[in-house]
Amino acid sequence: MSIVLLDMAMSLDGYIAGPDDADGGLNDWFFDPSRHNAEVVAESLHTTGALIIGRRTYDIGAALNAFADTPYHVPHMVVSHTVPAQTATSPAPFIFVTDGIVSALTQARAAANGKDVVLGGGASIAQQYLRANLIDEIQIHLVPVLLGNGIHLFNRDSSTIQKLEGTRVIGSSGVTHLRYRVVKEATPANR
Amino acid sequence: MSIVLLDMAMSLDGYIAGPDDADGGLNDWFFDPSRHNAEVVAESLHTTGALIIGRRTYDIGAALNAFADTPYHVPHMVVSHTVPAQTATSPAPFIFVTDGIVSALTQARAAANGKDVVLGGGASIAQQYLRANLIDEIQIHLVPVLLGNGIHLFNRDSSTIQKLEGTRVIGSSGVTHLRYRVVKEATPANR
Repeated sequence: MSIVLLDMAMSLDGYIAGPDDADGGLNDWFFDPSRHNAEVVAESLHTTGALIIGRRTYDIGAALNAFADTPYHVPHMVVSHTVPAQTATSPAPFIFVTDGIVSALTQARAAANGKDVVLGGGASIAQQYLRANLIDEIQIHLVPVLLGNGIHLFNRDSSTIQKLEGTRVIGSSGVTHLRYRVVKEATPANR
Repeated sequence: MSIVLLDMAMSLDGYIAGPDDADGGLNDWFFDPSRHNAEVVAESLHTTGALIIGRRTYDIGAALNAFADTPYHVPHMVVSHTVPAQTATSPAPFIFVTDGIVSALTQARAAANGKDVVLGGGASIAQQYLRANLIDEIQIHLVPVLLGNGIHLFNRDSSTIQKLEGTRVIGSSGVTHLRYRVVKEATPANR
């Protein structure tokens, strides 16, 4: 079944990017040929039907020409206030969605063709989908480093406690791949 | 060899306590009889020679009478500005150290009798020892919950990147036990 998956690399102290948007080595494992890492990457490439990213992630990636060789050739929805004049060079199609996260998810589901919709870039976007209770599973690639500064994946000052259920742990070279199911409380509507 | 170990339970979003100092279920695993958890607890009880905690952790524990049945019967150094008139009822001796974290560590090492010195309570204390580069290993019991608010283990606005090396991952019921070695850069003094 198609799920909505939050999937990001994070330092032990909770950052998905270091100071000045530096990668901080958080994604080195993605290019590490060790068996467990390669299996996690292959699974992700196989199951991802569409990606949703934030506009800031898009702009940073576009400036670095990072989309030119992305292995994800699936539609990328960019949640955005405006549509840029030029689109980044990439084997992946970009669709700029200016009417909010629910619309982006609806379009991503349609584009994903039965595969997963993956939130793969941007803390702000991740937090918005979490608050809206639209995420089914979370995969964190926990990297053994304390960055001390940068962009935090999970924001503070949320009044909601969100229970998770650990479903998989893969200890690997230079990273621990952690997978969780978001526990959705039964409500009268879905009971 | 005796090491200095930072050992705490933390939510996936980085909190060691929830709002209003609530435990948030972060330590439920400690009392879970599943095999892996029991082994981690047994190891901790066997290897801990002395504990260092912050004064706030002490005050909260004392108010809850939480030290009355602690399984850790080893000396507890409490880093503090003042010495309380009365000491909490406990099988563990408390030593209030008012002249700083280095003094507390020296006293803890002497008291530990060759076993490990464990930083087991208090984010502020943990951060002070981390900044002073006095921690050898870190064990995080990562609990599958997003608390959204509370006390963060790792502070922000540190300018130092601290590399770690993952040494052990134990996936268990309701918690993932992660162990790291702090990578100390060679300096002219210890090269």
